Amino acid sequence: MPQGRPEYVPDDGLTTRARRRQPVLAVHTGTGKGKSTAAFGMALRAWAAGWPIVVFQFVKSPKWKVGEETALRALGAGGQGAPVTWHKMGEGWSWIQRPGTERDHAAEAAEGWAQIRRDLVAQAYRFYVLDEFTYPIKWGWVDLAEVVSVLRDRPGNQHVVITGRDAPAELVALADLVTEMTKVKHPMDAGRKGQQGIEW
Amino acid sequence: MPQGRPEYVPDDGLTTRARRRQPVLAVHTGTGKGKSTAAFGMALRAWAAGWPIVVFQFVKSPKWKVGEETALRALGAGGQGAPVTWHKMGEGWSWIQRPGTERDHAAEAAEGWAQIRRDLVAQAYRFYVLDEFTYPIKWGWVDLAEVVSVLRDRPGNQHVVITGRDAPAELVALADLVTEMTKVKHPMDAGRKGQQGIEW
Repeated sequence: MPQGRPEYVPDDGLTTRARRRQPVLAVHTGTGKGKSTAAFGMALRAWAAGWPIVVFQFVKSPKWKVGEETALRALGAGGQGAPVTWHKMGEGWSWIQRPGTERDHAAEAAEGWAQIRRDLVAQAYRFYVLDEFTYPIKWGWVDLAEVVSVLRDRPGNQHVVITGRDAPAELVALADLVTEMTKVKHPMDAGRKGQQGIEW
Repeated sequence: MPQGRPEYVPDDGLTTRARRRQPVLAVHTGTGKGKSTAAFGMALRAWAAGWPIVVFQFVKSPKWKVGEETALRALGAGGQGAPVTWHKMGEGWSWIQRPGTERDHAAEAAEGWAQIRRDLVAQAYRFYVLDEFTYPIKWGWVDLAEVVSVLRDRPGNQHVVITGRDAPAELVALADLVTEMTKVKHPMDAGRKGQQGIEW
């Protein structure tokens, strides 16, 4: 696809290079697998490009996605590419982890978002993975209008990837790149549970 | 999802653990982005699980996906997890790269597949990424019936991920996990070309 020609060239006064280098907001949504996995795959490219990376995981379980975390942390620590910062609600923030009420979870999700907002305003990173971030939005724990305005007005050249089912229309409207992952078939349909190395 | 319960438990005489550890054949298809990216994201998990990994890229261009290659090679060379082997038709095999006839490309695709088959029979790796492998199948350069039988009869516990548009029905039927990536929106729609760190 990088070799392709855009279907039209907008009359925006930008050179091809300047237009190409605009910050990207990507959304991976749908009920199929691969939303987060593709986001972490994108982080590989960001790492190879030398961009400082941050991951905010609004995860369901502490054992989830540890493979990606181990690998990206190893890359970040290798000294060869960009550093990788990893925030996980399931640990630092608690959420599902620590026993708590829904009010606690809502507050912690809001806290996670407040940190994202600070980082975006400060241009702390070049590449952000906001993993499973559609859920706290959906549950009203984070204000959608604020998310949209902060993302829209983010300074500099910061790329953001948001994953999760049911991405709200306002987020899709704002995004540059939206992919829907649809389940065609899943091992669980055949009574098989997830396994290490494949599911996490 | 690893925490989920399968909807039914098959009467296959296997324990949950044995059933869970069956080899997985995954297919990422559809016209949207994220097919390969999610496959490389899965490779992160495989790496973290300590599995030897091989990538066969039936790629269109040498500059494509270099970010993933750089990052996964760095992980493979780090000595911490599994080794990563990388085969790229665009270089070693040539294909679109070197000037050549379609006959050459077909022969080289067939050569790539012959190596995959040898590796599967020899159980040379635990995790295989066959990137853009649906195309040589579609173009008749590789025999679909043979691909299906080799994959179906592969020995041991070898996981395989195949990416590309238009996955043939026979492959989908054989696969354990199939996700369709659908394009909702792409930066090229707005006249923006791909950029380093995002598209490759």
